[in-house]
Amino acid sequence: MAGAYLSRVAEPASVPLWMFVQRHGYLTAAAAIRAGDVPAEVASCTEARRTAADPEADLAAAQRNGIRLLTPADEDWPHFAFAALQATARRRVAQWQAGVRARPERGELIPPLALWVRGAGELSAVGFRSVAVVGSRAATAYGEHIASEFSYGLAQRGVVVVSGGAYGIDAAAHRGALAAGGCSVLVSAGGLDRPYPSGHRHLYDRTAEQGLLVSERPPGSAPHRQRFLSRNRLIAALGAATLVVEAAHRSGALNSAGYARDLGRPVLAVPGPVTSAMSAGCHRLIQRDEEPARLVTSVAEVLAYCGSAEVEMDAGGPAAGRPPAAGGPAAASGPAAWQHAYDSLDVVARSVLDGFPGRRRSVTEAELSRLSGQPISQVIAALPVLQGLGLITAAREGYRLASVAS
Amino acid sequence: MAGAYLSRVAEPASVPLWMFVQRHGYLTAAAAIRAGDVPAEVASCTEARRTAADPEADLAAAQRNGIRLLTPADEDWPHFAFAALQATARRRVAQWQAGVRARPERGELIPPLALWVRGAGELSAVGFRSVAVVGSRAATAYGEHIASEFSYGLAQRGVVVVSGGAYGIDAAAHRGALAAGGCSVLVSAGGLDRPYPSGHRHLYDRTAEQGLLVSERPPGSAPHRQRFLSRNRLIAALGAATLVVEAAHRSGALNSAGYARDLGRPVLAVPGPVTSAMSAGCHRLIQRDEEPARLVTSVAEVLAYCGSAEVEMDAGGPAAGRPPAAGGPAAASGPAAWQHAYDSLDVVARSVLDGFPGRRRSVTEAELSRLSGQPISQVIAALPVLQGLGLITAAREGYRLASVAS
Repeated sequence: MAGAYLSRVAEPASVPLWMFVQRHGYLTAAAAIRAGDVPAEVASCTEARRTAADPEADLAAAQRNGIRLLTPADEDWPHFAFAALQATARRRVAQWQAGVRARPERGELIPPLALWVRGAGELSAVGFRSVAVVGSRAATAYGEHIASEFSYGLAQRGVVVVSGGAYGIDAAAHRGALAAGGCSVLVSAGGLDRPYPSGHRHLYDRTAEQGLLVSERPPGSAPHRQRFLSRNRLIAALGAATLVVEAAHRSGALNSAGYARDLGRPVLAVPGPVTSAMSAGCHRLIQRDEEPARLVTSVAEVLAYCGSAEVEMDAGGPAAGRPPAAGGPAAASGPAAWQHAYDSLDVVARSVLDGFPGRRRSVTEAELSRLSGQPISQVIAALPVLQGLGLITAAREGYRLASVAS
Repeated sequence: MAGAYLSRVAEPASVPLWMFVQRHGYLTAAAAIRAGDVPAEVASCTEARRTAADPEADLAAAQRNGIRLLTPADEDWPHFAFAALQATARRRVAQWQAGVRARPERGELIPPLALWVRGAGELSAVGFRSVAVVGSRAATAYGEHIASEFSYGLAQRGVVVVSGGAYGIDAAAHRGALAAGGCSVLVSAGGLDRPYPSGHRHLYDRTAEQGLLVSERPPGSAPHRQRFLSRNRLIAALGAATLVVEAAHRSGALNSAGYARDLGRPVLAVPGPVTSAMSAGCHRLIQRDEEPARLVTSVAEVLAYCGSAEVEMDAGGPAAGRPPAAGGPAAASGPAAWQHAYDSLDVVARSVLDGFPGRRRSVTEAELSRLSGQPISQVIAALPVLQGLGLITAAREGYRLASVAS
């Protein structure tokens, strides 16, 4: 209920609200906001709706539309996919508090407080083998052909295609994945009961059957412009890589690519004729001096650039071709899968995992910092990754190794 | 006469012949070959034609066809453009002799011993503001359009377009430059009196009117396969950069790009639809892990990637738009131009130039090595560059500063 209230009371990606909730927890934060007993910066982004927000009505509307609410406390929360968002947000807030960076503004890379979802898929599995496919609404026939073909090929190989459900590249990407019998995640800027564009109601329904609809906004919300921008960070976060199929010079798809870059995720771009304005943004991404996008011409190249963990899983057999509805994170389902998960960790995360004191004893973040020799900030950033991979679980006080990893 | 004989007696790019001529000079080398008094490796590449070669007949045929012969002793020899070839060849031979590299084979990057040219342009000016435009013979309409448009734009800005006169991209490049009233250099694999393909006789004639035809082979020579490969090194060497417009996976244009890379020249590639096999080679070049080609989408980008010296000249006013027939190297015609030339030098070449002992006194290579503190091999490599830029001139014994630089 607190999650539903918080998702209604402020616009998405509000930094003061996120910080307030991080500090006080969902229940306390929601009660304080409802009572108007909050710092000025939280009040300013919640005042307009703090008494009018009606989470019970939103939850009832959700239920009528087959929509469910997820918060980080839910098993199906995509901890793994959002670990980079979480780490980036904490780092930026810490930098602001240390005075080395301006105060984070709206639209920063902060995790959502809650998500409304509809469909058969499991969101927690997204981010392992997933690619965000983005591009212009005013796509060319070439762009739509490529989006559809690539998404078909990715879905055939068990890769989840994440996109925004818009006209043009988005729709072609969803349809390609669905045509392959694969899984597609559609992240909407408005409420899931209000397909946008409205002509895409059938696309929404088909996506819910084979995959998932996701939105940060409760049912009934209109897709405002600002919500598209904050929505784009979720598309980037839910993809292990972001593939830009077609984009004009000032396309919103470049915004998604920028988020992916900031999250440390590979940005891939499909070239096209230099005579096409719709490929100009892709070419610009490839030409960047710093962190250029990788030029890709085939599904195989997309898979190769998604990182070694992806490629290893591809070779691993059963994981390939498995839609996310078939189970949780592949990594937690056996010794070989555990090894895969371990292999996918960076050095810091491995150190943190190695710092756990044997089976079943729970430790706090501060203890882990001492045991692993890693700074507390790194420990905090690594924990959601380890949790998302099923290697550790939250305990009453702190964390402990999951049974599979002990 | 010795140049004409040497250009007939062996196939182009023969390493033993080049080394023999470097050691003994043109006259002595030619006489020794004619007499059969040469080391085995020189004999093996000259024996077949050493008595039959008829330089007087070749020169007469050339004269009848408006073709003239150039050797490094001629004012119009492109020392500047060939400096990288010269340096690469010397380095590789030295590495071979030092035992750190296999013996250089045919097709290595060695300078030509002589060139047959026809047309109004001055070859010595090529290489300052020039771009080699290469691509597939089986080009698509898109590729031909781009080759023609880019070459038109480059020629409009006073850039010489260098290509091979073949069907497809080559022809479109030449025609684009000619249509702009600019200068185009066509490097042929066979004799200049034998246009190849034969349907391109009119293209050859028009190119000779506005630019230059160039070949390493004397009149009457057929365009054999091996001659295309050795011809490609000259196209790469005559371009300040090499632009690949369209190329399939195993296109000869990739061979030209490889030569350009080996010479340290920028390789630029135009992207295209990933559905087009004719763009696959361009995409592969851009994807290379080592020394990838730069993706270019416009004439302005081509100019920007041609190196700062080019861009400076572009901003310099008179040099821009000047066809090479209008004068020698731009750098030697005044203090500002001298500064441009100086600025374009690398550190070693500047040291060598700084080592010259004031006005008019000539020095040998060994003296310069001592005066500049640079190894003799570096001095030898730098001298043609300085000479090509008009900063120094050959003296009776060694070199001296040119009057403009003293």
